[in-house]
Amino acid sequence: MNPDLLLSRLTVVLCRPSHPGNIGAAARAMKTMGLSKLVLVQPRSFPDPEADARATGAVDVLNSAVVTESLAEALSGKVLAVALSARQRDIGPVVSSPRTMVRQMLVAAEAGEVALVFGNESVGLSNAEIQLCQAAITIPTNPEFSSLNLGSAVQLLCYECRMAAYDDAPPVSNQGVTQFASVPATHDEVEGLYAHLECVMTETGFFNPAQPGRLLPKLRRLFGRVQLERDEINILRGILAATQAPTRHGRH
Amino acid sequence: MNPDLLLSRLTVVLCRPSHPGNIGAAARAMKTMGLSKLVLVQPRSFPDPEADARATGAVDVLNSAVVTESLAEALSGKVLAVALSARQRDIGPVVSSPRTMVRQMLVAAEAGEVALVFGNESVGLSNAEIQLCQAAITIPTNPEFSSLNLGSAVQLLCYECRMAAYDDAPPVSNQGVTQFASVPATHDEVEGLYAHLECVMTETGFFNPAQPGRLLPKLRRLFGRVQLERDEINILRGILAATQAPTRHGRH
Repeated sequence: MNPDLLLSRLTVVLCRPSHPGNIGAAARAMKTMGLSKLVLVQPRSFPDPEADARATGAVDVLNSAVVTESLAEALSGKVLAVALSARQRDIGPVVSSPRTMVRQMLVAAEAGEVALVFGNESVGLSNAEIQLCQAAITIPTNPEFSSLNLGSAVQLLCYECRMAAYDDAPPVSNQGVTQFASVPATHDEVEGLYAHLECVMTETGFFNPAQPGRLLPKLRRLFGRVQLERDEINILRGILAATQAPTRHGRH
Repeated sequence: MNPDLLLSRLTVVLCRPSHPGNIGAAARAMKTMGLSKLVLVQPRSFPDPEADARATGAVDVLNSAVVTESLAEALSGKVLAVALSARQRDIGPVVSSPRTMVRQMLVAAEAGEVALVFGNESVGLSNAEIQLCQAAITIPTNPEFSSLNLGSAVQLLCYECRMAAYDDAPPVSNQGVTQFASVPATHDEVEGLYAHLECVMTETGFFNPAQPGRLLPKLRRLFGRVQLERDEINILRGILAATQAPTRHGRH
């Protein structure tokens, strides 16, 4: 299925968010990764100017957000609901890593609508809410500091969804892209550079062909790594040629 | 090399950040993923109470942050500097995806200190700054809305670094984890359930062994998927047994 269509079937559900700024940040995070459906369960304050401010250009996601009284209402019609949980619960679905679970989410999205459920900033999801979900994700944070911002958590999950929907290789925006100035150098052009370099080094006495040592292989290793372009070869050979010119010590 | 040691060799460099809140958000994002070294190049305002507020428990990262006058100064001693860039530049290193580049960063971190360089919120990195870096990353955002928050960009990159340092399987915090109540059921226990179920269904007339159809395979498919635990088998067989008891219609 088309990756953008798959992403359009993912809904982000925020349960009882306390800070309107985080709602805006979530909307912005979603839109940067191609998600657009936002459901808010009992938000403390919404709509709110702070949410609009933090959403920047993603106010359209806020404008189309749906507010519900309960998570059950938010999950109506979904074929899969995945909870974000900071830890494995005694009761509740088994917890997977984001990268593992987003693939299952996209498989489910082939068949219908999927929800990604985030809890309140301070207390997370209740046990009753977790049990409405069929699967759970824990983001593998630093065990000594696992205090991930809500907007950041939404950002990470939406990013993983986008990566998975595009098989780890989403296209990069072409807006404002200017192509590299030059084409790759051919083998002959690169060999021409080496020959020219060896000639100059020999003329200047830096290189002694009778005692070559490892200088030439080292230079090949260096320039071999950088995948030279034609223009770059021309520049380098221009520099070399200039050192050979009789007027190289300045204009007369 | 130890993953935490590798992560400790990564420095986040923020060039000319305008909003102190983003500095705090970056510090928090870093610490959740096990990074701790922050360098600020000409921050508009630092230290700043807004940075402290957004950092929450990561104020230690802010307190140990280094402020420099130039990116060149910030990169002193680094074996690799990787720029975050919203687009491929005409001049500048070739752009890779985060997932590809963080692996190269960790290889470099085996040998020394590595910098991850982020530009200003509005204008990004200058061409001169980009050219101080040997590699670049573009986060593959939605081409129609690529406006990623600075803190979110730091969060995504630090997350990818942590995932890569731990070979995609960082340990999850065990704080507050309670183990599942029961051990997995054995084959014999699961078969005992199926036999019990078949018996009850036959007794009640729901299942006719002379015309079995696909009922039994369907039940096996259902329960086979859920990897039943011993306690769950006991619960299910308890329910079945109760339907068979002579007092099942109520207490006498």
